[in-house]
Amino acid sequence: MSETYVYSFGGGQADGRGDMKDVLGGKGAALAEMTRAGIPVPPGFTITTGACNLYQAQGKLSSAVTDQQAEALARLEETTGKKLGDSDDPLLVSVRSGAKFSMPGMMDTILNLGLNDHSVEGLAVKTDNRRFALDSYRRFLQMFGNVVLQIEKDVFEHELTGLKKERGLKLDTEMTTKDLADLVDIFKAKIREQTGSDFPQDPRTQLDMARDAVFRSWNNERAVYYRRQNDIPDDLGTAVNVQSMVFGNKGDGSGTGVGFTRNPSTGVNEFYGEYLLNAQGEDVVAGIRTPHPLADLEKDMPKCYAQLREITGRLETHYRDVQDFEFTIEDGNLFMLQTRNGKRTAQAAIKIAVDMVKEGLIDEKEALLRVQPEQLDQLLHRRVDPKAKAEVLAKGLAASPGAAVGKIVFDSHEAVEAAAAGEAVVLVRMETNPDDIRGMDAAKGILTATGGMTSHAAVVARGMGKCCVAGCSAVEIHEKDGYFLVAGKKFSRGDVITLNGSTGEVLEGAVSTLPPEMSAEFQTFMGWADEVRGLRVRANADIPRDAAQAREFGAQGIGLCRTEHMFFAEDRLPWVRQMILNGPTAKSLRKRLTGLEREMADAGGARKEKLETEAKRVREALAEPQRLFDEALAKMLPLQREDFHGILKAMEGLPVTIRTLDPPLHEFLPSKQELAVEIALLETKGDSAELEQKRHLYRVVEELTEFNPMLGHRGCRLGISFPELTAMQSRAILEAASGLLKENIRVFPEIMIPLVGDVREFRHQRAIVDQVAREVQQATGVEVPYLVGTMIEVPRAALTADEIATEAQFFSFGTNDLTQMTYGYSRDDVSKFLYEYIEVGILDRDPFVSLDQTGVGQLVAGAVEKGRGARTDIKIGICGEHGGDPRSIDFCYRHALNYVSCSPYRVPIARLAAAQATLRHQEGTEAPDATR
Amino acid sequence: MSETYVYSFGGGQADGRGDMKDVLGGKGAALAEMTRAGIPVPPGFTITTGACNLYQAQGKLSSAVTDQQAEALARLEETTGKKLGDSDDPLLVSVRSGAKFSMPGMMDTILNLGLNDHSVEGLAVKTDNRRFALDSYRRFLQMFGNVVLQIEKDVFEHELTGLKKERGLKLDTEMTTKDLADLVDIFKAKIREQTGSDFPQDPRTQLDMARDAVFRSWNNERAVYYRRQNDIPDDLGTAVNVQSMVFGNKGDGSGTGVGFTRNPSTGVNEFYGEYLLNAQGEDVVAGIRTPHPLADLEKDMPKCYAQLREITGRLETHYRDVQDFEFTIEDGNLFMLQTRNGKRTAQAAIKIAVDMVKEGLIDEKEALLRVQPEQLDQLLHRRVDPKAKAEVLAKGLAASPGAAVGKIVFDSHEAVEAAAAGEAVVLVRMETNPDDIRGMDAAKGILTATGGMTSHAAVVARGMGKCCVAGCSAVEIHEKDGYFLVAGKKFSRGDVITLNGSTGEVLEGAVSTLPPEMSAEFQTFMGWADEVRGLRVRANADIPRDAAQAREFGAQGIGLCRTEHMFFAEDRLPWVRQMILNGPTAKSLRKRLTGLEREMADAGGARKEKLETEAKRVREALAEPQRLFDEALAKMLPLQREDFHGILKAMEGLPVTIRTLDPPLHEFLPSKQELAVEIALLETKGDSAELEQKRHLYRVVEELTEFNPMLGHRGCRLGISFPELTAMQSRAILEAASGLLKENIRVFPEIMIPLVGDVREFRHQRAIVDQVAREVQQATGVEVPYLVGTMIEVPRAALTADEIATEAQFFSFGTNDLTQMTYGYSRDDVSKFLYEYIEVGILDRDPFVSLDQTGVGQLVAGAVEKGRGARTDIKIGICGEHGGDPRSIDFCYRHALNYVSCSPYRVPIARLAAAQATLRHQEGTEAPDATR
Repeated sequence: MSETYVYSFGGGQADGRGDMKDVLGGKGAALAEMTRAGIPVPPGFTITTGACNLYQAQGKLSSAVTDQQAEALARLEETTGKKLGDSDDPLLVSVRSGAKFSMPGMMDTILNLGLNDHSVEGLAVKTDNRRFALDSYRRFLQMFGNVVLQIEKDVFEHELTGLKKERGLKLDTEMTTKDLADLVDIFKAKIREQTGSDFPQDPRTQLDMARDAVFRSWNNERAVYYRRQNDIPDDLGTAVNVQSMVFGNKGDGSGTGVGFTRNPSTGVNEFYGEYLLNAQGEDVVAGIRTPHPLADLEKDMPKCYAQLREITGRLETHYRDVQDFEFTIEDGNLFMLQTRNGKRTAQAAIKIAVDMVKEGLIDEKEALLRVQPEQLDQLLHRRVDPKAKAEVLAKGLAASPGAAVGKIVFDSHEAVEAAAAGEAVVLVRMETNPDDIRGMDAAKGILTATGGMTSHAAVVARGMGKCCVAGCSAVEIHEKDGYFLVAGKKFSRGDVITLNGSTGEVLEGAVSTLPPEMSAEFQTFMGWADEVRGLRVRANADIPRDAAQAREFGAQGIGLCRTEHMFFAEDRLPWVRQMILNGPTAKSLRKRLTGLEREMADAGGARKEKLETEAKRVREALAEPQRLFDEALAKMLPLQREDFHGILKAMEGLPVTIRTLDPPLHEFLPSKQELAVEIALLETKGDSAELEQKRHLYRVVEELTEFNPMLGHRGCRLGISFPELTAMQSRAILEAASGLLKENIRVFPEIMIPLVGDVREFRHQRAIVDQVAREVQQATGVEVPYLVGTMIEVPRAALTADEIATEAQFFSFGTNDLTQMTYGYSRDDVSKFLYEYIEVGILDRDPFVSLDQTGVGQLVAGAVEKGRGARTDIKIGICGEHGGDPRSIDFCYRHALNYVSCSPYRVPIARLAAAQATLRHQEGTEAPDATR
Repeated sequence: MSETYVYSFGGGQADGRGDMKDVLGGKGAALAEMTRAGIPVPPGFTITTGACNLYQAQGKLSSAVTDQQAEALARLEETTGKKLGDSDDPLLVSVRSGAKFSMPGMMDTILNLGLNDHSVEGLAVKTDNRRFALDSYRRFLQMFGNVVLQIEKDVFEHELTGLKKERGLKLDTEMTTKDLADLVDIFKAKIREQTGSDFPQDPRTQLDMARDAVFRSWNNERAVYYRRQNDIPDDLGTAVNVQSMVFGNKGDGSGTGVGFTRNPSTGVNEFYGEYLLNAQGEDVVAGIRTPHPLADLEKDMPKCYAQLREITGRLETHYRDVQDFEFTIEDGNLFMLQTRNGKRTAQAAIKIAVDMVKEGLIDEKEALLRVQPEQLDQLLHRRVDPKAKAEVLAKGLAASPGAAVGKIVFDSHEAVEAAAAGEAVVLVRMETNPDDIRGMDAAKGILTATGGMTSHAAVVARGMGKCCVAGCSAVEIHEKDGYFLVAGKKFSRGDVITLNGSTGEVLEGAVSTLPPEMSAEFQTFMGWADEVRGLRVRANADIPRDAAQAREFGAQGIGLCRTEHMFFAEDRLPWVRQMILNGPTAKSLRKRLTGLEREMADAGGARKEKLETEAKRVREALAEPQRLFDEALAKMLPLQREDFHGILKAMEGLPVTIRTLDPPLHEFLPSKQELAVEIALLETKGDSAELEQKRHLYRVVEELTEFNPMLGHRGCRLGISFPELTAMQSRAILEAASGLLKENIRVFPEIMIPLVGDVREFRHQRAIVDQVAREVQQATGVEVPYLVGTMIEVPRAALTADEIATEAQFFSFGTNDLTQMTYGYSRDDVSKFLYEYIEVGILDRDPFVSLDQTGVGQLVAGAVEKGRGARTDIKIGICGEHGGDPRSIDFCYRHALNYVSCSPYRVPIARLAAAQATLRHQEGTEAPDATR
């Protein structure tokens, strides 16, 4: 038997089922499931994603598909008792896309298909509303012309406007039946003119063409971009749903709406949504008319309201999740058009998950899997300070919570440019549309003047976890002239405003914001996560304040404390510079001296005399740089000790991994180019002391400048060239630890050597640390329980991890550098081609954000295996940016790392991601799906 | 039974054997072997390398060793009939180091051990020469004081000079018995003064102390440096040879000499060497007195000469190799002190190997293994043009062949510094000593005023394959004042001279040199190598001349033709710059335009109007940069076609791998810093057109400047950003090939995509090449047999080689970049720490010279396996510097690569190394030993 490409539904029966999203798409699966559940759904059929892939591959469909389609159409005509193209009671259908994962507004939809010069008369007779029939026809022509025949929208708009102008009309609703009939003729003529062919009168041809257009729309630019943004594979394809039309625009007994079974913004268990009377579905979501709250429907149409409550309640119980539904009422009859699990804010996701566990709908494990870890980010961001004095300019809908402070822009392109330049912007639009996605992504927040809680702006902003105030009609936007008016004031492009997405307020100027506050549900929820996971979560923090914040967010230690950040502090930089400016000189002179002394041992007579003179000269030259170098180190020791005291104390009882100095030394010095310019300018004025000094500084900086500093003299290479540095830092750590232990504060310092590529580098550095530890113990009498380990960030370290593990007590994967070197991408330069690479599909995603499991992952997996092979109890973690990325955390779980370490604000995300990884893999469910 | 630590030899019997070099060292093994062969060798015993390692580990020796030593000493006393310390006829011994591999002059030697206040009298009586006995004693005190007791040489020299001055003497030989007796007392007093103890009178104590000193000398600075230079492992240890003394300085019936069974410089089968009458061994090799040719010995001592000829002939046959021997004649009796396989120049090595095959001494395979591939380098270097008009200043010994042109330096330290600064220098010394090794390494050639063909300078220079003229007594050196006089002219530090190491001539100024000429033996020898090896050898060459040279050296194709070198040519650079300055601008404007056009499709009304205005502006701005970019590419196409025509033609019938553009674009632009300085200076003079132009250029350069260009926008990343570039280069290659094929010239272009890290990058570029190929075929009607493959130089490419091999027809390992990224070492910056790393033992050798088989090798091996797994017939080669390194070639053989590619001058080396690898591994002999 050949593959099934078409699944019918209707009359209480359906070929498909709710778990067939892969084949039927989300919408098709839901329609089948609802039909089976006896819920009123207009009958129809779904053409599968398999047919879409066939179409993409071959550019056309096989007869297997078209035969099945013809059969399903015949069944549909039978079920509805109507016929396509019939001039008495014609069957009209909608043709909609529907992929496995919701891609709102990304692909095309055609309504009222089946209308032609004959059936329009049938519709007029049957509905007893000729105007409605003609209006439907001209809308269909317009939609079909644009979507299927690829004629620009403008062409039709232009004719419509022209006709209204000619006949002195302002609103569409003022057009008479005659006007509409003329418009139909004009549109048909335009189609002929633009395409060279007549508008297809045969409804079966219309259907085939519409189906193919929907398939093609899978690859339109918006859809492709959306898939990249949401990690949806390109080869899934979309299904096409052909469904008999019901009309919400047949008059005041009709209407259409969308809603959620619980509040998707707060999670409160309340019936939530919007509707419009006498309207078609697109009118609600397009945000052109501001709709009414669903609660009002109880007054308008009590019976329908009750039925809707009953049905949606049943759907929520059935799917055991919040439902996002669409419905149409045609002449008092309720039809469900769509139901799906509702998108929600992080706050809502957590509240709903916790509530549903209380209600017994789901268990804790399921609750944990319901929240996308990345979403938690929303909860951890700042909010408008409620005590801040701020002028409220207007109040719109609290469409997506959070706070946004930024300069006003009116255009997505501008938003992208400004964000690229590092500016915070707020995107202000009448309404947003799918073309605005990039601009919304770039903005800190979105403000729209029209549209409701389920408008495009609101839905997309919530998905992005971005603050949004929607439908703020008090704002009068003059986009073209670059300003808006509100509360009698004029705000121009570039002026700063603040949005409060949790209240819907628009505030004047930059209002102060507050750190996030964790709800009780959040604590409960995270508690469940912690019970489930074994993978520990640490934070990357360099100062006590960040460490304390991380601890509050649940960090179980510090995975990376970068000591170089301490070197940049104002009170240290002069000493750091003194060290750098004198260390290399002292070193090379010391070396020369040793060489001379050796030569002298063998030499005699005049040669020896000569050597002695030279040695004397060298000794004299050495004295000052050596003194300055020693002095700088001596000055830095107590400062560093203080640094480590603070951070170790903040993390009492938990491990703190401190990395010895990592970056190339010239980072601490002034810019070579700037010095060259200063010198050139000074030279025009003749010799001076300042010139001489700058020239000296220039020589030192030049000596330290590298072609590729990332691959240069940094990391443990510095510690090997200047063992005094490693010794000083080790001493500062161990003395600080020793001091705290004396106060009975339990501390667990872990000293980490960066950029090791060969076990001998590590051995060299560890010997210094161990030596210092012995000295500190002898001096203080306290035994500090320290570990010495290494970053695994150089590919060679991963490749020789077995050798390194014989010496190192822990590994921490520095996946930033490991990614840089494995790909050969300089992180500082990669933007020159990275985004293009993602755009043309060479990369699926930024490998600095989500670990490249195919390439870099091989090195990580291999190093874990080799490391554990050589030292069973070696502690292994990750401290690159990837430590906070859920997909990468899943990888870390699968490779049995002991911990991940990430920025403090990502700690809760990591905790949840770790729990989810555990649940997924322990229960053998599949790896994180593409939308996570 | 416990381990044997001491092996005796003497009286025709020996405990050890010639194949026990590991245990007895080279010298000890040879002494045992000669003794067994009935050759007159002074009896003695060898303390093993195992004892040395024991000493290094524990700082002292166990009783197992000392007991065996006492036993061997007793045997020796028995064999010789003398007793250590005896006051009638004392046994005197030499104590010498002897490691597995010869390390000439690197470690310590003590002669005349056994003398004390009593035995000196015995020696006087027995030899009837009190002066000789006292002179021997004072020499022993001096040597023992310096080597064993670590007193500076000077201390004794000072006393000696003082005594001579006091007594009005000039030469040592003028000293009376009384003088020498006084000197003995003075030296003993000095020893007491310097060490706080008396000179040890007990000869057994002397022996133990001398033995330990020799063991310690294994780790002196010179020895460690020599081992690093020659890849000798540190853990081999040295043996100690204790041998009864024979005296070559007993009068004119005595003498000492060294020699070779064939000429080690030319390979000619002639008896060759030098001797001195009435001298001890060190006098010959130290180069202080100029010795006589061995041939003269036939006149001086015909019987001894005949015996020496007979013995050394027997030794050569026995060892089946040229022997380097030492002998002493004591009162007309010949003793052999040492024999070993002789070091030789490449020319000699090949001639000797080929001759010995003819003589039936060895077979071809053995002959191939006799020549160190690196040595061939000597044959391939330039020689002085015999037709050049040049003033011959003087003629010395042709100690090591070749030519050297360079500035005069008198000091090794200076030589090292000058070489580091990129200057060619000639090191001029009275004599060289082991401390000069670094300086000799750094110099282009060495000129000495004293010393013979076997002097330190000559031996070491030959080993290094460095031109050397020795014993040029016409040169009067005033080292301290920095000049020398010769032929009535004064040459100062920094003046240029030329050495002809093949004739011994010293020439004034820089004399022109010629390319090398291959001897008939060389051709025969290389023919054998080619018969044996399967691994093919290609060359890296960018221009037809180099390609032709490579072909002459036996290259079987071009493994890497770098197209960027063509871009730097004077006639191209302006076009290259025009391309770079306009490409990115044109690209970003095109992108903006596409975006606007898409937006316009959906927009209407005022917005559309605005977009159209903007689009018009962009279109106008785009016109000029696009035209300039296109023009530059169009201009470069014919130039590149010509380049490829030349190189393909030169390699007719052989494959030529051409790499598309690789380096970051800013390499072709002026320096950013220089521009900044120019701008700052121009700004002081107010606005000008020049300033504006520089500012524009600066912006472009800044835009292209990268933090880490090595990891930046280069390689195929450029070809993906600018597909036009790949297309232009592919077209140039394929059109050139097509043109040649039309002329019936068979060409096999292989187009290589650089810096691929993901199969999708390769797929993208290959699609362009294939498209161009179709177009060229269509236009010309010629089908070019081309391949498209990739560099494997990014670690990720190696890790995902299975994926890449599904698309790529060949792999070429770019081990330079692969080493950079796997280690995280920027090749341009690595000198900041690399040498220190080698010095402190973190690295064994420079990984850019010899492939790191532990780390980088894992990636190579894995990629070969994965590549072949995915595409059985994939062609795999290596084109990094490692392609010419014998050790790396051995690795390539073991991992079944198809070819190595190296610089033209290394092709013969690679051919021989490939043959040796085949022989070694096919016959199951061990991997290349440390000295290869």
